[in-house]
Amino acid sequence: MSFPCLDNLDERTRKLTARRSSESGPEPSYTSGKHETFHSSHPFLLDWGGVLPSFDIAYEAWGRLNADKSNAILLHTGLSASSHAHSTESNPKPGWWERFIGPGAPLDTDKYYIICTNVLGGCYGSTGPSSINPLSGQPYGTSFPILTMEDMVRAQFRMLDGMGINKLYASVGSSMGGMQSLAAGVMNTDRVGRIVSVSGCARSHPYSIAMRHTQRQVLMNDPAWSETRGNYYSSLPPHAGMKLARQIATVTYRSGPEWEKRFGRQRADGSKPPALCPDFLIETYLDHAGEKWCLEYDANSLLYISKAMDLFDLGKQLQDATRQRRQENVGKLQHLPTQEEVSSQCTLTVPDQPYEETDASSADAMASEAENSNSPTSSPGVPPEDLVKGLAPLRDTPTLVLGVASDILFPAWQQREIAATLRKVGNRSVTHVELGEDRSLFGHDTFLLDLEGVGGEIKRFLG
Amino acid sequence: MSFPCLDNLDERTRKLTARRSSESGPEPSYTSGKHETFHSSHPFLLDWGGVLPSFDIAYEAWGRLNADKSNAILLHTGLSASSHAHSTESNPKPGWWERFIGPGAPLDTDKYYIICTNVLGGCYGSTGPSSINPLSGQPYGTSFPILTMEDMVRAQFRMLDGMGINKLYASVGSSMGGMQSLAAGVMNTDRVGRIVSVSGCARSHPYSIAMRHTQRQVLMNDPAWSETRGNYYSSLPPHAGMKLARQIATVTYRSGPEWEKRFGRQRADGSKPPALCPDFLIETYLDHAGEKWCLEYDANSLLYISKAMDLFDLGKQLQDATRQRRQENVGKLQHLPTQEEVSSQCTLTVPDQPYEETDASSADAMASEAENSNSPTSSPGVPPEDLVKGLAPLRDTPTLVLGVASDILFPAWQQREIAATLRKVGNRSVTHVELGEDRSLFGHDTFLLDLEGVGGEIKRFLG
Repeated sequence: MSFPCLDNLDERTRKLTARRSSESGPEPSYTSGKHETFHSSHPFLLDWGGVLPSFDIAYEAWGRLNADKSNAILLHTGLSASSHAHSTESNPKPGWWERFIGPGAPLDTDKYYIICTNVLGGCYGSTGPSSINPLSGQPYGTSFPILTMEDMVRAQFRMLDGMGINKLYASVGSSMGGMQSLAAGVMNTDRVGRIVSVSGCARSHPYSIAMRHTQRQVLMNDPAWSETRGNYYSSLPPHAGMKLARQIATVTYRSGPEWEKRFGRQRADGSKPPALCPDFLIETYLDHAGEKWCLEYDANSLLYISKAMDLFDLGKQLQDATRQRRQENVGKLQHLPTQEEVSSQCTLTVPDQPYEETDASSADAMASEAENSNSPTSSPGVPPEDLVKGLAPLRDTPTLVLGVASDILFPAWQQREIAATLRKVGNRSVTHVELGEDRSLFGHDTFLLDLEGVGGEIKRFLG
Repeated sequence: MSFPCLDNLDERTRKLTARRSSESGPEPSYTSGKHETFHSSHPFLLDWGGVLPSFDIAYEAWGRLNADKSNAILLHTGLSASSHAHSTESNPKPGWWERFIGPGAPLDTDKYYIICTNVLGGCYGSTGPSSINPLSGQPYGTSFPILTMEDMVRAQFRMLDGMGINKLYASVGSSMGGMQSLAAGVMNTDRVGRIVSVSGCARSHPYSIAMRHTQRQVLMNDPAWSETRGNYYSSLPPHAGMKLARQIATVTYRSGPEWEKRFGRQRADGSKPPALCPDFLIETYLDHAGEKWCLEYDANSLLYISKAMDLFDLGKQLQDATRQRRQENVGKLQHLPTQEEVSSQCTLTVPDQPYEETDASSADAMASEAENSNSPTSSPGVPPEDLVKGLAPLRDTPTLVLGVASDILFPAWQQREIAATLRKVGNRSVTHVELGEDRSLFGHDTFLLDLEGVGGEIKRFLG
């Protein structure tokens, strides 16, 4: 039997290795084209105790900032997106939200000044694991400190400070950006006029964590990653692991019913005998999605940002714990920790005893328990108390929450949870929209595709 | 940062390599303990043209076959299960359906003679890729021919022939076994008295194919697999790839709401800083699931059987095409193909042009289209014509179809499809049960866990 999918990978490895050994220069940097850069030369304390001696934030902007700087909208991105949400004069390539931004568009450049950043931890111009650590002169790699959604938002607000923008007209984001959009309001209540959160959540749930876990694991199992323990910048990038991770991610971004319509059970070539390499059309689609991406994004950025998504929880307990930890660590801003101190801090957290099923998890126990308790799907009206306390700062912030019924990664109950929690907090300006399967079968990716269903709601909400 | 999850894998690789080089004997065979073996010494033609010169089927049985051999129930397994569904005298280890089989149990050994096999292609005693090819004296590896669900069923019926069992009281199966249970009836209408199909389907849908595709890809990307192109039997087994594949599979076997209850957002050790290796409890659960399994099952069996599941479609067109292909290939039974002929037959099926999104797949087009068409989830009452024709042989076979609302791998609409199709065919003895989320949050795994919800229905149906 032949294995063209493996032959392709071998061929790419061979080419990348040959190219690398013939080059004397550094690793070519990931880029999405020309952008502006905000540079902060002050040390930056992260939520889990890491410190960046300085950092850059790549950004792009569209529209015009008005005289009193009151019309700025901060647009938060999904996991792997760059600041290039829309074409610019210096980079005419269409952006990832090209049709959503412009004169008369949902983010209307005739009215608003739209700013989009590459997140801290990313690889498209902002400081992340592939950046040079100014203290060592080498790429951070896995010596980059663990970071959080809130750290990314804090870096964005440093940038806004630099721009003299005190208050945002709105904080807008989808997917991971939908998390950050909420976090921005919670952290800076007086600086965020209104919030749009599309296909996001107020806390990551275990199924999403599981899906991201498998992506991280396949990536870290690529020998190019595992043999260097993530310090691959002077050798081969883990392109095979990135391709696999992207294929798994793509499964979570779309939905079964859409694929049923689009691919059904079509094989790529029904006249040939079946193969273990991609064979059905859905497989060649996934393979292609992985191929397109595997050298376009930094593997460590994926690991760190995906981890930050897992850690996201706007509940009061975690907010309080984080605040306390930051107070304990604030001294690090004066005395930057050494590399050794940073490394020794990140220790093993796997328990000695593996998790075992307990009796309480038997089906009969669960069936009877289900009758007496509130499952997350069955009780959208009863938000958890910890989250109600955590979102209390948003009581007076008009908020649009939008979800998609066919989304399996950020399922619609999570957006219902946000809306219900905000209402419980006393917020009387909550707009909650759920796009049913009659409107979109595109699952999580709907926010990239549905100009009217998603964009139309945003336009009406922003006014 | 430390990476205990990778250190563990390195350590296992080291141990396996050391063990292997100190042993002079052959690869230890996979086993689930003592079982019976049916041996067929006649060549066996497979649906896609492959020929096995001979084959074994491992089986176990419980209860007593009555005098006229009319009380036999054939139990079909899930993908990776052995014939050990229940403990036996010679193997007292609990089986995978221990509580479902026995005196007074859903499969009542006071009444019935229950037979369970390891499927053709498996590694627990039946002939599969890890078996020795009698023609070469070497393990088949990836020279094993592509096989189908129907091939597995055909091998089972050869075994029944050998036992002198002409007609089954019932064909019963869950998951992959739920597919085979239906196929057995379609292929042998007069030999199957009734059918139980739990959490199965009549044709694989693209989302399931996608999830299995990612498992195959991560497995084939393990260097132990890719560098040997699947002929790893005299070297290191691809344990890391198997562990990854099992973790992805586990995500599809369970459900988000169950995990929400069980694990929530608990970290394995909240006092330690976050890690890129497993950190949340859900991650250590998945890690453990992979660990337990990675050396218990043959990687190539997983590839071939998972592929056979993708190929499953009881529609009339595929049945007709298969019948024609078998007629064309029947001569191979007299003249067994050489290894070279087998290898040359399995050629590349990946198209030169990668799949590209088309305009028709834009959200607006889909939204308007959705209003006019029937999505698989919204039209349970309108089964596809091809499937109606394909299931026509089951018009007079009493059938129990059971689905679970929280199942994401074989979603409930697929069991609704089976039931609706059978009714359309004119079958007046269709029992369709759907366990809602109030009954089970265990997703696809419900069939292994819910003795009352699943077993109770089976008991009532079998009488």
